[in-house]
Amino acid sequence: MALRRSWLQSANAPECDFPLNNLPYGVFSVGDSELRCGVAIGDRIVDATGLEAAGILRADPDADVLDAPYWNDFMELGREAWSHYRTSLTAMLAESADEAVQDQIITHSVSLTEAALHMPFRVSEFTDFYSSRHHATNVGTMFRGAENALPPNWLHIPIGYNGRASSVVVSGTPVTRPHGQIKGPDDATPRFAPSARFDIELEMGAIVGQASDGPLSVTQAFDNIFGYVILNDWSARDIQAWEYQPLGPFQSKATATTISPWIVTAAALEPFRTSTPARETPLLDYLTEPGPMLYDIALEIGLTPEAGTEIVIARTNYNEMYYSAAQQLAHHTSSGCPMRVGDLLGSGTISGPERHNRGALLELSWGGKEPITLDTGETRTFVEDGDTLALRGHAQGDGYRVGFGACVGMVRPARQ
Amino acid sequence: MALRRSWLQSANAPECDFPLNNLPYGVFSVGDSELRCGVAIGDRIVDATGLEAAGILRADPDADVLDAPYWNDFMELGREAWSHYRTSLTAMLAESADEAVQDQIITHSVSLTEAALHMPFRVSEFTDFYSSRHHATNVGTMFRGAENALPPNWLHIPIGYNGRASSVVVSGTPVTRPHGQIKGPDDATPRFAPSARFDIELEMGAIVGQASDGPLSVTQAFDNIFGYVILNDWSARDIQAWEYQPLGPFQSKATATTISPWIVTAAALEPFRTSTPARETPLLDYLTEPGPMLYDIALEIGLTPEAGTEIVIARTNYNEMYYSAAQQLAHHTSSGCPMRVGDLLGSGTISGPERHNRGALLELSWGGKEPITLDTGETRTFVEDGDTLALRGHAQGDGYRVGFGACVGMVRPARQ
Repeated sequence: MALRRSWLQSANAPECDFPLNNLPYGVFSVGDSELRCGVAIGDRIVDATGLEAAGILRADPDADVLDAPYWNDFMELGREAWSHYRTSLTAMLAESADEAVQDQIITHSVSLTEAALHMPFRVSEFTDFYSSRHHATNVGTMFRGAENALPPNWLHIPIGYNGRASSVVVSGTPVTRPHGQIKGPDDATPRFAPSARFDIELEMGAIVGQASDGPLSVTQAFDNIFGYVILNDWSARDIQAWEYQPLGPFQSKATATTISPWIVTAAALEPFRTSTPARETPLLDYLTEPGPMLYDIALEIGLTPEAGTEIVIARTNYNEMYYSAAQQLAHHTSSGCPMRVGDLLGSGTISGPERHNRGALLELSWGGKEPITLDTGETRTFVEDGDTLALRGHAQGDGYRVGFGACVGMVRPARQ
Repeated sequence: MALRRSWLQSANAPECDFPLNNLPYGVFSVGDSELRCGVAIGDRIVDATGLEAAGILRADPDADVLDAPYWNDFMELGREAWSHYRTSLTAMLAESADEAVQDQIITHSVSLTEAALHMPFRVSEFTDFYSSRHHATNVGTMFRGAENALPPNWLHIPIGYNGRASSVVVSGTPVTRPHGQIKGPDDATPRFAPSARFDIELEMGAIVGQASDGPLSVTQAFDNIFGYVILNDWSARDIQAWEYQPLGPFQSKATATTISPWIVTAAALEPFRTSTPARETPLLDYLTEPGPMLYDIALEIGLTPEAGTEIVIARTNYNEMYYSAAQQLAHHTSSGCPMRVGDLLGSGTISGPERHNRGALLELSWGGKEPITLDTGETRTFVEDGDTLALRGHAQGDGYRVGFGACVGMVRPARQ
């Protein structure tokens, strides 16, 4: 698919994250104003709350769904309403829109640079998966040796655990280095101390846009996913190593999970669908993908030391996943587990085959044994206080791209 | 402490779960009426929503907090408001209340038997712990042998995992036997089938009544707990065994968690405080209990086959816990994890030293190897379709008891 041209010229630049093809949904404020729902286009944010209130563009003729600081009520409306709204907004922003419409949009929009961005949706619950084969193999090799790297269930189940929705924050929120129980292999007893192995995890997050109350097929699951964000699941590796047996990660993953501020819709990503890889062992029927349900999304991690410039420490792609979000969601409902609008599913760390494709410092520094060197000559094994981590991603079209905006977090020192 | 006498005679019976000393909070409806907040006393439910609307008893002079089908807004008000409301309601229901007040209460109350009970609060997130030493030892012995029964971290950390809030249901809700991936030790590959080892877990649930945004001391954590319910964490043992490595239980625990319908407040349980046991190894400072923060609550499990009468298959006590809910909550916040009003913390299965003190069929039947025999001559290893499980509990005072009401679930056959 080619670029859809907008009358807003900034949206037509090849490097712009937010062309007319994208139209991602976020929540913004200007100065001390209230939080409003907005749609990014070029270098502006269209005030969707304002358009609704003025009766210019309504998602639901009978009820206001955008008079709230989140897109959950809009998602509740369902796929037909999502599609209709996107079509209407696309027409209003397309080159062919008449001048009166253009004036209405200009009146109801602000510059991206003057706006503060907030959580785009209320997270109902957060689930995190472990579905990149390279990541699972790397971590398994470090923890259990190369021969036992992949757990026996891994090729059969999209392994996941429930995370903590209350700790999900929007890009730009500072993250405080956590305390926790830590016991090294040579320590006689644990101590309570700041994490010395605080890490990032580069993931994609899928947002559930329709509630369900029983098992979903993979196709139904795909249809219920509203959109995607980039996600950084901050992880304290030393806390994790001591706590995780037998019930899994808990406080090591509860400090913060950062998401990018714009929900990029499944509709915008449609041209970039791709298949999960061929299976080594066949999947059970309830997990079989009837078509391509993964996406080709280029991803990278930038690290900026407190006094320094950014260096990109890893590049990978969402197409490295062994399981798609649709497969993860289908598995999630297999027990009858009810899902709700606003449920967030993390893909798991996305690593590729090469060292520079790894999505966590644990893997990039091979458990801290092989520090990576920054441009400044500084080295890193794990994240240091003052470091800013920026995760970015986009799908590359023909002369345009569908971008996510950055998922940024700066690490503050542990509490005194 | 002795019985506080009420003018409502049914509340003064020694076997009544809901004397004036209790005053638990629930949500009820009568016929097709809307859901309302209510307080149980004797054989009646006081319509707290109605008392608020009529201006007779208000928790907040400026805002309605009980015009909703949950107690969350009330909890938001904080400890001082909780205490003031309880004191006012106690005075209105005490023997000394004047007749005009009694008439108001009678007007704004219904019979327990004519009401349907609903979820008493909105569950924000659900966390489940593993803090009964007998339970952890029994399960560990079955899975890893007696010498490795307790994981090395167990005596240092109240081990827990995040559960699924969307699956929490109120007593009386039928529970459908789940499907899931199952692979026995002798199976070459997994299959997708109904769980054949579907089980219960007898637990107490602690309800967080105040939000927090950083680490809490054990004392602060204790103060933030609003009240308690009885909790049954339905568990599919065969799904659990195959899925739980390395990230913990997921779909095996996502079908349903049933809670009893009344929130018994920490205030009502105050006379029954007791200490956790002496420590084999000292706890780190952040987990040390400054005083008794556990409760003496007698618990039992009744099993009723589809065509049969109930038999009590286990009796235990909440005082068997190695960690209190206050310690669990303090640990939960140690990483900086934000907590919200309505967070629910399951204690973990509560087992005592003897066989008949075990809180799960997994332990009672020793992994299915030692079936238990019911009065009818039938045997059970795990739950069968049509079985009704009723978990009950009360704290025993001098001539009165503070009861929870039953936590009941009937098992329906798996979906076809």
